Amino acid sequence: MASSVYNEFIDINKVCSQSIIEKMLNIHKNQTKIPFALGLPSSKFFPILDIQKSVATLTADDFQYNAPSLNLKSHIVNLMQKRGVKCNTEQIFLTTGGQEGISLLIKMFLKHNDQIIAEKLSYTGFIQAINEIELDITIVNTLDSGIDVNEIHKHLQQGKRPKLIYVITDGHNPLSVSMSHATRLKLISIADQYQIPIIEDDPYGFLFYENQMPTLKSLNPDGVFYIGTFSKILMPALKVGWIILPERYNDTLKNIKNSWDLNTATFSQRVIANFLETNSFSNHLLILRNEYKKLRDIMICALKDYFPKNAKYIIPNSGMFIWVELNNQINTNKLLEISLQEYGITFMPSSVFGVTKDIKLINGMRLNFTNCNPEEIIYGIEILGKLISRF
Amino acid sequence: MASSVYNEFIDINKVCSQSIIEKMLNIHKNQTKIPFALGLPSSKFFPILDIQKSVATLTADDFQYNAPSLNLKSHIVNLMQKRGVKCNTEQIFLTTGGQEGISLLIKMFLKHNDQIIAEKLSYTGFIQAINEIELDITIVNTLDSGIDVNEIHKHLQQGKRPKLIYVITDGHNPLSVSMSHATRLKLISIADQYQIPIIEDDPYGFLFYENQMPTLKSLNPDGVFYIGTFSKILMPALKVGWIILPERYNDTLKNIKNSWDLNTATFSQRVIANFLETNSFSNHLLILRNEYKKLRDIMICALKDYFPKNAKYIIPNSGMFIWVELNNQINTNKLLEISLQEYGITFMPSSVFGVTKDIKLINGMRLNFTNCNPEEIIYGIEILGKLISRF
Repeated sequence: MASSVYNEFIDINKVCSQSIIEKMLNIHKNQTKIPFALGLPSSKFFPILDIQKSVATLTADDFQYNAPSLNLKSHIVNLMQKRGVKCNTEQIFLTTGGQEGISLLIKMFLKHNDQIIAEKLSYTGFIQAINEIELDITIVNTLDSGIDVNEIHKHLQQGKRPKLIYVITDGHNPLSVSMSHATRLKLISIADQYQIPIIEDDPYGFLFYENQMPTLKSLNPDGVFYIGTFSKILMPALKVGWIILPERYNDTLKNIKNSWDLNTATFSQRVIANFLETNSFSNHLLILRNEYKKLRDIMICALKDYFPKNAKYIIPNSGMFIWVELNNQINTNKLLEISLQEYGITFMPSSVFGVTKDIKLINGMRLNFTNCNPEEIIYGIEILGKLISRF
Repeated sequence: MASSVYNEFIDINKVCSQSIIEKMLNIHKNQTKIPFALGLPSSKFFPILDIQKSVATLTADDFQYNAPSLNLKSHIVNLMQKRGVKCNTEQIFLTTGGQEGISLLIKMFLKHNDQIIAEKLSYTGFIQAINEIELDITIVNTLDSGIDVNEIHKHLQQGKRPKLIYVITDGHNPLSVSMSHATRLKLISIADQYQIPIIEDDPYGFLFYENQMPTLKSLNPDGVFYIGTFSKILMPALKVGWIILPERYNDTLKNIKNSWDLNTATFSQRVIANFLETNSFSNHLLILRNEYKKLRDIMICALKDYFPKNAKYIIPNSGMFIWVELNNQINTNKLLEISLQEYGITFMPSSVFGVTKDIKLINGMRLNFTNCNPEEIIYGIEILGKLISRF
């Protein structure tokens, strides 16, 4: 059983990485004992009772077809102040989760044969979305200080003219780094100089554990298209995200959105707006940060105790992941095969994160720390450490 | 105020019809007294308490990120038996409303310069979706018996090779006709002969008032891609629809869906599944059919009483609309301007339904009868009749 689902996974991995999240989800449900693979928030902290109370106050109009909720947009405007962004409701565009935010902006900015700049390893949802178009992709590295801005600068000086730069500023998925302040400033400055729009994908920015850094959007409101989502900080099932964009793009984006799915589920919008109306979201975020920080620290300790000394990782300031690079003899696809079959432990192997098909990184792994309890984290990392020593 | 919003509407109407539904929605909220414009179900019949009960039984897992609900798919399999369709859960593909169903299939089947066959006047959401691609569109007429199959046959005989035929079999939007049995059989036969996939968009098929006809899907399961939605028969705000497709297309469609929005809101899926688990949906549909039929009959009577004798319309067997064609001196854009400004009465003028830009039909109007009470219908039609007599 484990083997056949695993084979399906490997298959997908080879043929196309497009359904990787759903495949992992199925593995997760059916046989995972310790799920380090997906970027799931802990359901322990879902404010279920408050959401149910919020639903209980809905009226007929909340279930009718409706234009995007102005009330929810106002709450997002307030929320964004926590990320240093000053905006108004006209600049908030509601989406069917963060993924649709990416798709809408890609559809707005890119056509076949356009140039873009992207990191070598990036979010699978972004990779899937750009795979829908034939693009001229310039790859740059990611350092511990974030995307390599000097490389970007060099490409621009050499004449590359990308239509956009996509970045995950905080709690990078999969690489777990957050951009240094200097990198943020330099990226903004270069993009501004060459007039290249930046897409700042920020699902994890509210989940910071040491210090909060300024969003790119706050540094250059007119040049940055910000994508936010309630999936990681409230509940994924509601599937509501938002874009913050310069107002002049509003109509174009509205037309793309209308023609794809008309609007974002009113029900989810109203439920979230009601929840934000009557609960302290600051308090909720504080709880998440405290609890996830504990789990992060436990995983870091376990990695120190059980992983080989030459394993490379950082202590992430934000987000849900720790990225580990093992010595380059270790193939993490094979490691996953064993860890899943023998122990029901999953993680994401580096092979799925290459932005282009020719990127072959076999010795990396993305470990999620937000959806396990401390005992599972310690046990899972101990086992993975033992399995690694077999190679 | 009325005037400025109206101007915005006319503007949209001229420049692009893309945001027409949202514009109408805003007009609707702000100043409409009698809303015949949008295809909204009556919120009087929303089973709000049952939905709230359904939400109250949800657990943490229902709010987590999850693969498409197998439970909901099973309920849809049962529901589809009422439309004569035999299928299994593997053939059900959940979508973010019916509109995403259209978008997904269009993305799967069409690329630039492809040929398609469409009716001269069709659903605005379909028009928006195909406007995203440059297509070679062959236009055919719609008769009282539905799409003109003889015209289709002629085009095929003359060498046209469309990649798909899009139809609304029952309760056509905007034309309010339902296909005759003979038309269904002939369409299936021709499409099968030339191996052209049919997209059967069926938001209104469960709302039949005289007799139920077989869906195209039931007549040829392998050649028809069926689109259903809970928006018109349960609540629009949940935004859950489905496609029924031959299993071999499942992976392709999954990749397109994954790369656009990953999945359909789990919350909505679970809420609907729970609702269907514990309530009689047959009974709910029966109530809708009874109540909407009464409203349809009242509107028909009012049209007989107050509209000019040469106005053309049929008594629709299904759906939410009555399509009226007035004498060809009457411009329904102008009629709308007056009816909105003077009385706050809206309807959809024929000008927004042309599949291509060169289609100019100025004397038609689509009247919705499901979202007003009897007094409003009678009063609204009486006023419209008086305004028409001014032309």
